[in-house]
Amino acid sequence: MNFKWVEHGSVTSVPGFRASGVTAGFKRSGAPDFAMIFSDAPANFAGAFTSCSFAAAPVQICRKRVLNSPFVRCAVINSGNANACTGKSGLADAERTCERAAVRLGIAADEVLVSSTGRIGVPMPMDTIANGIDLAVAALSPNGGETAALAIMTTDTQPKSVALTLEIGGKVVTLGAMTKGAGMINPEMKVPHATMLCYLTTDVAADNALLSEMMGRVAAGSFNRITVDGDMSTNDTFVIMANGRSGVRIEAGSPEAAAFEAAMLEVARRLAREMVMDGEGATKFVTVKISHAATEADARLCAEAVANSLLCKTAWFGGDPNWGRVVAALGYSGAKFDPDKADIFYDSIPVVKNGGDAGTTEAKLVGVVKQREFTVSVDLHDGDAEYWVWTCDVSYEYVKINADYHT
Amino acid sequence: MNFKWVEHGSVTSVPGFRASGVTAGFKRSGAPDFAMIFSDAPANFAGAFTSCSFAAAPVQICRKRVLNSPFVRCAVINSGNANACTGKSGLADAERTCERAAVRLGIAADEVLVSSTGRIGVPMPMDTIANGIDLAVAALSPNGGETAALAIMTTDTQPKSVALTLEIGGKVVTLGAMTKGAGMINPEMKVPHATMLCYLTTDVAADNALLSEMMGRVAAGSFNRITVDGDMSTNDTFVIMANGRSGVRIEAGSPEAAAFEAAMLEVARRLAREMVMDGEGATKFVTVKISHAATEADARLCAEAVANSLLCKTAWFGGDPNWGRVVAALGYSGAKFDPDKADIFYDSIPVVKNGGDAGTTEAKLVGVVKQREFTVSVDLHDGDAEYWVWTCDVSYEYVKINADYHT
Repeated sequence: MNFKWVEHGSVTSVPGFRASGVTAGFKRSGAPDFAMIFSDAPANFAGAFTSCSFAAAPVQICRKRVLNSPFVRCAVINSGNANACTGKSGLADAERTCERAAVRLGIAADEVLVSSTGRIGVPMPMDTIANGIDLAVAALSPNGGETAALAIMTTDTQPKSVALTLEIGGKVVTLGAMTKGAGMINPEMKVPHATMLCYLTTDVAADNALLSEMMGRVAAGSFNRITVDGDMSTNDTFVIMANGRSGVRIEAGSPEAAAFEAAMLEVARRLAREMVMDGEGATKFVTVKISHAATEADARLCAEAVANSLLCKTAWFGGDPNWGRVVAALGYSGAKFDPDKADIFYDSIPVVKNGGDAGTTEAKLVGVVKQREFTVSVDLHDGDAEYWVWTCDVSYEYVKINADYHT
Repeated sequence: MNFKWVEHGSVTSVPGFRASGVTAGFKRSGAPDFAMIFSDAPANFAGAFTSCSFAAAPVQICRKRVLNSPFVRCAVINSGNANACTGKSGLADAERTCERAAVRLGIAADEVLVSSTGRIGVPMPMDTIANGIDLAVAALSPNGGETAALAIMTTDTQPKSVALTLEIGGKVVTLGAMTKGAGMINPEMKVPHATMLCYLTTDVAADNALLSEMMGRVAAGSFNRITVDGDMSTNDTFVIMANGRSGVRIEAGSPEAAAFEAAMLEVARRLAREMVMDGEGATKFVTVKISHAATEADARLCAEAVANSLLCKTAWFGGDPNWGRVVAALGYSGAKFDPDKADIFYDSIPVVKNGGDAGTTEAKLVGVVKQREFTVSVDLHDGDAEYWVWTCDVSYEYVKINADYHT
């Protein structure tokens, strides 16, 4: 594909977008905890959100925007408080957040998207929000993307911000994005549906329906294929804002739309990968790939069972090739396949042949699983369907982070 | 119920059963690793086994016994090697194990049950098996039950062995049992279906069909409701042997059968509870109880999502009341319910009311979750169905045990 990564890319690599990241006061550490993205022009948009039945107040607001707002201008994002399970007052708080931002920016409240991440069930400190909005508006800058990415971090060890450019119809268009992990990661986002947050900006012009359609497929091929801990969040949010500034309009079914969607997938996969690499306490990045399954549903059941198996994840942490745990997870996955035909590989090294030991020496297998990154491939010899998932290990550090998490 | 726990109870508390536990040589540590139970008379029996599609060779043998053998006399159990994913040669090894035991005991091979637990995918060292059989036959004793329970341990920190007596029709009958955990525990056993192993002995007389029927219900009310790590084993086995020696015959549908089944459930629950208490690295025993769900299936989805949530389990380890993680797990469980009606209690302390913070102080909640044992109750206010699960926390020790497990 004809694209180029932008050095120090961010949501503000896209012409017409400004952003900021400030310390509003949510985090005890004093680290940046409030971000804003602002589009100089009305931006078409689409969103995909958590399928958790306890959807946080800001998610409820965003869903409403997707249904009712033809375009948006702004997104405000705080870390340190999820505004989830906060009832009607939480919803009112999220509305008031949009209203204040709107007033300060001279736009309408229904042109504002809002996202939150952090502790669940704690009322939103509205003074801190007000402080954040005022500071963020004042700090908006065409170079603010990287700071914004810093401000949305929770347990992430590093900010996740990228941008790429590609040519469509002789013109250059840009896609910028930022995201955060790094726990409660097992998104299953449905369109008008991680606590992953991902904001994409672009200067193509596209209508909301097309953006939504592309977003659904992109989420299915990226964020919905990652897991850190198997826990889905109340706040997962994936948003794209398109301001049309490049003069390139993309239409459903066109080669331009296909090219743009491919670029969007590239951005989303890169960020999804970074999210797993930076998963809480993670020391290993593991691709679980199932091939030749009878159906994609069977392949997915197998991939997700292995990717979420606590025994597999702790074995990986220990650099233990223990393939019995992989086999056990496949066996309880609920997928239909013939165990006697299953082959397993670690990278390209045969581990299991026809459901039994392939005879590779332990030392060779240890060589693979000691790496920072490797692939567990399972060939079911049962059909043509396939599926893959990105996952990480479970370490002492994971337990430490989560046994003692108070923002 | 009219029963009495037997002090130092075991499978040999039941008249007519002998047992032994010996060091065959599977474990590097030199700890006992081979157990035998022998019934002086032909015993009716039933078994429930893992629903993992990679069922270990000994499980396959036991299933065949359930189908074809009218009665059994003996069970041989080794720890340190699972004989799973060992293909045709593994199956032949399991057959040869039965054959050797049969020859030494002067019985038929199809009167021998076999179970294995330990590392998956390693060929069974048949010399060690032969050694185990010879030693175990020589050591068979009417007082051998407790030693047998020692010999089936893997990562368990203590043996799990009980017996009770109850009166049925004026006569005393006895139920003895032994089991082992302590990882790869999330059994879902189907009748003629953990690496939990549980062997029950009794001196009632009952036909295999009735024993099987009772076992199905007992497993559903005990072992199938526990989880340590959410990983189901290739080797889970639950067996009952009934030698009839008490002279009490129980018939399907009789009050005697009901009394016996209740006692069986009591034994199974006590052992299931001990298994979770002794779960790998566990420092907390947590009952997750869902009430007033629309259907039992919804209640079960909710209970299992919370019980298997890595974020809930690490929070419990940390003594962190973090109810947001409970709520998130309920929300992604797939169960149908109205989040705005859900109430949550830690023991009897209100935590969540109508889907939001119940206003209890953090200190009070910490008081509950700091305990060795507590209950997370969720009232969905949505119907009359309920379900409960026993689970434990995930600790540094859990990671340690499983990052570095070689028997």
